[in-house]
Amino acid sequence: MSVIRQDLTTRDWTIFATERAKRPKYECGVVKKERVKDEYVENCPFCKGNENMTPKEIFSVKEGNDWKVRVVPNKYPALEEKGVSSGAADRHIKGIHLYMDGVGRHEVIIESPKHNDSLATVKLEQVEKVVLTYRQRFIELSKNEDYQLIVIFKNYGVRAGTSLEHPHSQIAATPFVPCYVRNKLSKSQIYFDDFGRCVFCDTIQYEIRDKKRIICENEDFIAFAPYASTVPYNVKILPRKHESCFGSISEKDARSLASILRIILQKLYYLLDNPEYNYVIDSSPIDKSGERSYHWHLNILPRLTTRAGFEIGSGININTVLPENCAKLLRRIKIRP
Amino acid sequence: MSVIRQDLTTRDWTIFATERAKRPKYECGVVKKERVKDEYVENCPFCKGNENMTPKEIFSVKEGNDWKVRVVPNKYPALEEKGVSSGAADRHIKGIHLYMDGVGRHEVIIESPKHNDSLATVKLEQVEKVVLTYRQRFIELSKNEDYQLIVIFKNYGVRAGTSLEHPHSQIAATPFVPCYVRNKLSKSQIYFDDFGRCVFCDTIQYEIRDKKRIICENEDFIAFAPYASTVPYNVKILPRKHESCFGSISEKDARSLASILRIILQKLYYLLDNPEYNYVIDSSPIDKSGERSYHWHLNILPRLTTRAGFEIGSGININTVLPENCAKLLRRIKIRP
Repeated sequence: MSVIRQDLTTRDWTIFATERAKRPKYECGVVKKERVKDEYVENCPFCKGNENMTPKEIFSVKEGNDWKVRVVPNKYPALEEKGVSSGAADRHIKGIHLYMDGVGRHEVIIESPKHNDSLATVKLEQVEKVVLTYRQRFIELSKNEDYQLIVIFKNYGVRAGTSLEHPHSQIAATPFVPCYVRNKLSKSQIYFDDFGRCVFCDTIQYEIRDKKRIICENEDFIAFAPYASTVPYNVKILPRKHESCFGSISEKDARSLASILRIILQKLYYLLDNPEYNYVIDSSPIDKSGERSYHWHLNILPRLTTRAGFEIGSGININTVLPENCAKLLRRIKIRP
Repeated sequence: MSVIRQDLTTRDWTIFATERAKRPKYECGVVKKERVKDEYVENCPFCKGNENMTPKEIFSVKEGNDWKVRVVPNKYPALEEKGVSSGAADRHIKGIHLYMDGVGRHEVIIESPKHNDSLATVKLEQVEKVVLTYRQRFIELSKNEDYQLIVIFKNYGVRAGTSLEHPHSQIAATPFVPCYVRNKLSKSQIYFDDFGRCVFCDTIQYEIRDKKRIICENEDFIAFAPYASTVPYNVKILPRKHESCFGSISEKDARSLASILRIILQKLYYLLDNPEYNYVIDSSPIDKSGERSYHWHLNILPRLTTRAGFEIGSGININTVLPENCAKLLRRIKIRP
């Protein structure tokens, strides 16, 4: 019989049905993600030498004359800056419906000049530059009062929704806080009001004591497989220090995050043979940077299974692998320096 | 510039960024769903003649000695019946975490004896038998007090998460109500408390008057493209009569639902060349069958695009096609009797 576990921070339940891993797989139709071979691809807008193929550069990290990380506007933005700022995000009513202009930001963070690099296998210094860029852009976008939530995310592989192969992440700033985020904040607020403590801080302490789901730790962060993991090999990275908003991260901690992120991505890369995945930084909204009940974290979700009708209709996830088993296998993978 | 629209019933926002449809598509890796040719496939457990390959039959609709629709337990169930019913769904605490046994039900509804049938193209009588079976199973499972929510869903195609090609739907009964459903109920409750009316009833009236997003109607149901559609060609079918729980549907209305469902699936089939899709019946929990603020509906979600990091991290959907355009194209497709 399966077991159903609750995520303490969101109160969402996941069904663990390990027998379902034995289901027949009919023609899965998804081409295995291959390791990219060429350092330069002629028609890739993100490759070094093709800088004129992107919109105007917003920010870059340089060594001498060469850029190492580069930020440009998304050429097909979901959200865009509006000329006049005041009232840009005003809501309008049409009949019974509410709408607003798609104001905000949608930027691409090109993680390397090389087409065939990967965060899982590049040198630590390169991952540091990427995470320091996340920090810089988050702080910069936070200054615009039209924006309420900033989402940093990475789509790796076709099944993860990427449309370009060159290593990149994205950052979006939205002019509203969605229900999904409000609901999470509300759940951690209830815990805080009940117990007087941050539910994430309590989880960190418990998981360190319990050991079973911990994958690795450093001075500033812990990485573990969540008790109610939503997908196989789900990994969360949490800062030990209570901080609700990613924008509060110090430069030193950003480097520390880069280090543990690279370790986790490398472990997943070798254990699961270069899996497709998404990761996202779950931060509080900008105006809740001092919030005692929320705690930002980085959530890594390999795309090994497909979200289907049951998950869509109920919001309940079905997972075929227990986090204790994922953590055990990931702990064993040795890291290359 | 994109536009952001709110779903009045859930208060979730969708970003409509039609320019994003022009993004480059790199090697999409998904094999086009082909029309299935053979009526019988030797190793298919759902084909007529292979009845011994499934667990024991729970229910069937027969004509003479032949079954036309057949219900069997899922061979790889997410949830299972427990021998002793009382306390089966009790919660347990381990350290800081909550868990419970995976009690519930997970059944497969085999929609036809023929491997190559499709709800989009079979005769109306066959779809009626399927929907009447949904009704029968929903009512039957509602009798078990351990179950709180019943989800009827269909996964069509690999990208929609199916593992077997033979036409089938599924029904699951869960021993708890997930946050996702509670949040939806709470949003429609707030509307009811504000306006004294069901938000879905108001939406039906408004959409009929506004015409732009209506796809088709019959005496008992309307089908439309929702104002804040979460994916391209999203279609919702709502009963005109206020009813919170699918289990309350009459036999007559079940036939009427079959008729409009078949029309919509056939329109999608011809317009989008046999697309992969999920559909799900969004019903109130079992104990809220008299709820004045909620209104069950059937939600059809073609799988033409991929949910990526932004959607996962924010809960905000990005859609590349406006519902008015979807509705216009779907209205034009002629139906075969």
